[in-house]
Amino acid sequence: MSARSAPLPPLDGIRIVEIGHFIAAPFASRILGDLGAEIIKIEPPGGDPVRSWGAQANGASLWWSVHGRNKRSVVVDLKQPEGIEAVGRIIARSDALIENLRPGGLARLGFDHERLQDLRPGLIVAHVSGYGQTGPTRDRAAFGVIGEAIGGLRYLTDHPPGTTDLPPPRVGISIGDSIAGLYAAIGVLAGLVRRNHRALQGTQNDGICTVDVALTEAVLSLMEGIVTEYGALGLVRQPVGSRIASAAPSNAYASADGRRVIIAANSDLLYQRLMKLIGREDLAARPELQNNAGRLDHADEIDAAISAFSCRFDARQLAAILVEADIPSTLIYTAADIADDPQFRDRGMVREVSDPRHGTLLHPGIVPHFPECPGAIRNTGPEAGQDTDAVLSGIAGYSMDEIDQLRKQGVIA
Amino acid sequence: MSARSAPLPPLDGIRIVEIGHFIAAPFASRILGDLGAEIIKIEPPGGDPVRSWGAQANGASLWWSVHGRNKRSVVVDLKQPEGIEAVGRIIARSDALIENLRPGGLARLGFDHERLQDLRPGLIVAHVSGYGQTGPTRDRAAFGVIGEAIGGLRYLTDHPPGTTDLPPPRVGISIGDSIAGLYAAIGVLAGLVRRNHRALQGTQNDGICTVDVALTEAVLSLMEGIVTEYGALGLVRQPVGSRIASAAPSNAYASADGRRVIIAANSDLLYQRLMKLIGREDLAARPELQNNAGRLDHADEIDAAISAFSCRFDARQLAAILVEADIPSTLIYTAADIADDPQFRDRGMVREVSDPRHGTLLHPGIVPHFPECPGAIRNTGPEAGQDTDAVLSGIAGYSMDEIDQLRKQGVIA
Repeated sequence: MSARSAPLPPLDGIRIVEIGHFIAAPFASRILGDLGAEIIKIEPPGGDPVRSWGAQANGASLWWSVHGRNKRSVVVDLKQPEGIEAVGRIIARSDALIENLRPGGLARLGFDHERLQDLRPGLIVAHVSGYGQTGPTRDRAAFGVIGEAIGGLRYLTDHPPGTTDLPPPRVGISIGDSIAGLYAAIGVLAGLVRRNHRALQGTQNDGICTVDVALTEAVLSLMEGIVTEYGALGLVRQPVGSRIASAAPSNAYASADGRRVIIAANSDLLYQRLMKLIGREDLAARPELQNNAGRLDHADEIDAAISAFSCRFDARQLAAILVEADIPSTLIYTAADIADDPQFRDRGMVREVSDPRHGTLLHPGIVPHFPECPGAIRNTGPEAGQDTDAVLSGIAGYSMDEIDQLRKQGVIA
Repeated sequence: MSARSAPLPPLDGIRIVEIGHFIAAPFASRILGDLGAEIIKIEPPGGDPVRSWGAQANGASLWWSVHGRNKRSVVVDLKQPEGIEAVGRIIARSDALIENLRPGGLARLGFDHERLQDLRPGLIVAHVSGYGQTGPTRDRAAFGVIGEAIGGLRYLTDHPPGTTDLPPPRVGISIGDSIAGLYAAIGVLAGLVRRNHRALQGTQNDGICTVDVALTEAVLSLMEGIVTEYGALGLVRQPVGSRIASAAPSNAYASADGRRVIIAANSDLLYQRLMKLIGREDLAARPELQNNAGRLDHADEIDAAISAFSCRFDARQLAAILVEADIPSTLIYTAADIADDPQFRDRGMVREVSDPRHGTLLHPGIVPHFPECPGAIRNTGPEAGQDTDAVLSGIAGYSMDEIDQLRKQGVIA
């Protein structure tokens, strides 16, 4: 060992089984896989339907290349007892299990907590669902749009009441599922910290460690003080459109070429600087606009003055003028702007990745970044069942004859 | 020890120092504190400005009760060498440090990585910033609104191009900061897993473990396949307003009392069920609407039919009818609906908490939920400096005389 080996990513040596579909649970395991965990995705014959979501190229989804990256795919029919047996043997050699079946679904398959504890004492089991594993509405069907609305996000993502008859827009991505996935990743990691901490202290392993993440609750947890303010004051937080509620000026201003530029000049100093830039020394000097409260009261007037300036320039030109003047601001980025951004490129947050099916693709990078021991993209989204044989022989201890037999019976693919 | 002691929360025994302000870093440590970690928040004289944000009662912010919960507050002047010495002694007894100064700010204070490694070999150091610790734009001022726009979230949270002249609304909370905070929490936990894993294997501690989280990148990491689709196909993902891009019908429909109800009947089965409920057997039977692609082509017509039904009922009545018919749906919840929700109450996700300043308050619960070893709300947001003496004597090893002297010098408060 004379050569210095590359540093291992932070979760090297951790093995996680995913019995997940669609977004929330698979997103949790993607994040953990990006940081070096081995992810074994158990899929039904035909594979997770999410494999075909989004825009297609070369007969395959492009999103799947990202959503499935750093995973190994094992196709098993969980309706057959031999399939349950095979997955049990994989679980027995793993650190954690992440699943997003309906509540109770994992137990109905045969993997109740007692069985899981028998298979792997101290296993961390993360359940992700719409409403949680308990409570009066746990069995209701949950879609992301519903969880986002119950968690309080949708109401606040809108123009102020009375501004328009248009319905409140969605955040244009599966934000509720993704946030639930991040909390599930936090839960798995906290469970691992607990287990290792106890092991280092010589404390006995005390059984399965369950993590119960609800989409509705994951969203609610980001809602700042709105529940507390309602409880104490009867205050119902209202949407504020494209401004921010507590400071001005901050808005999305139109440019000559029909785009929008965010300008956040919401401090005394930045306000002065911006008013001088746009040639409105009169507004810079007005006594009632010297503090934030006064500017909030006159936000319409200030925004009109900024818009009269912004609409004289194309967006890129405007953005350059604002950067030059050291005023916090940016174009509202599209996918094209993201792909071209020098900072994202410099930090590997937009990177070229080789995908066996697609050739070179752009992938988003690995978050969070560990400079001393970075995560890596070991593989892009695998074909369904690509790793069935390797996992069954290498981890679950099946012989090649047994694997052939299981395949003939239609238990694996 | 005859009585069985209450189970300890998962992160019991972990100590984390926060040199944070506003939202992102403090949110990360709130999440870790909720799960049982001891959080020592270092604040400047006067305290973190976020303490006064949001609606006030009893002369204090209500949000702070939540945002500062499960933390200990130590007020130290980091501009004085004795203040740096004191914080260094706390760091020497801690597992991790989370900070969100400008990039390089921590090192300028005196805490470069070499010093931190001397203080606490193997310390996990999470830096949270707008653009990251490296790269051409790392020094630019970053506000949440800017990070959300650069990460791609703002562009997609809008009505389709041409629908309205209104600017794209913000998500009405500090979503970019919160997401960055979740990734920082993931980073700290992954670092702890790595450290413990190495300790269990007998591998030598190998120095500081840095976590570098950028707000822009945290947002980008949720953007599904948009960068990949752009790179391969030149496709620029567009906002779709209140629908979802890939399935119909799913929208926010108006009720008679001027509210909105989400209905997600975007499967073949649910579509049939909904059309029968609203008395539109004709639409249920139409051949071209039997699959999702056809329904997407005719989404306007289907939505008009659903709206003609929805606007005949008050929102709560409509929601009850839809639940009865087993169609995924919900009112769009305000803070008031969240506070009253039986599921949230049943699971402790809206709970009453005693706050020394405010009396009984509603707090959001602890996410993720660990049923066997739940987190708890040990204390609400502390007064600035409330724990200075206890931490300096109990953790940093100062005598009461030394503490008195530091206070007289204005080093601590």
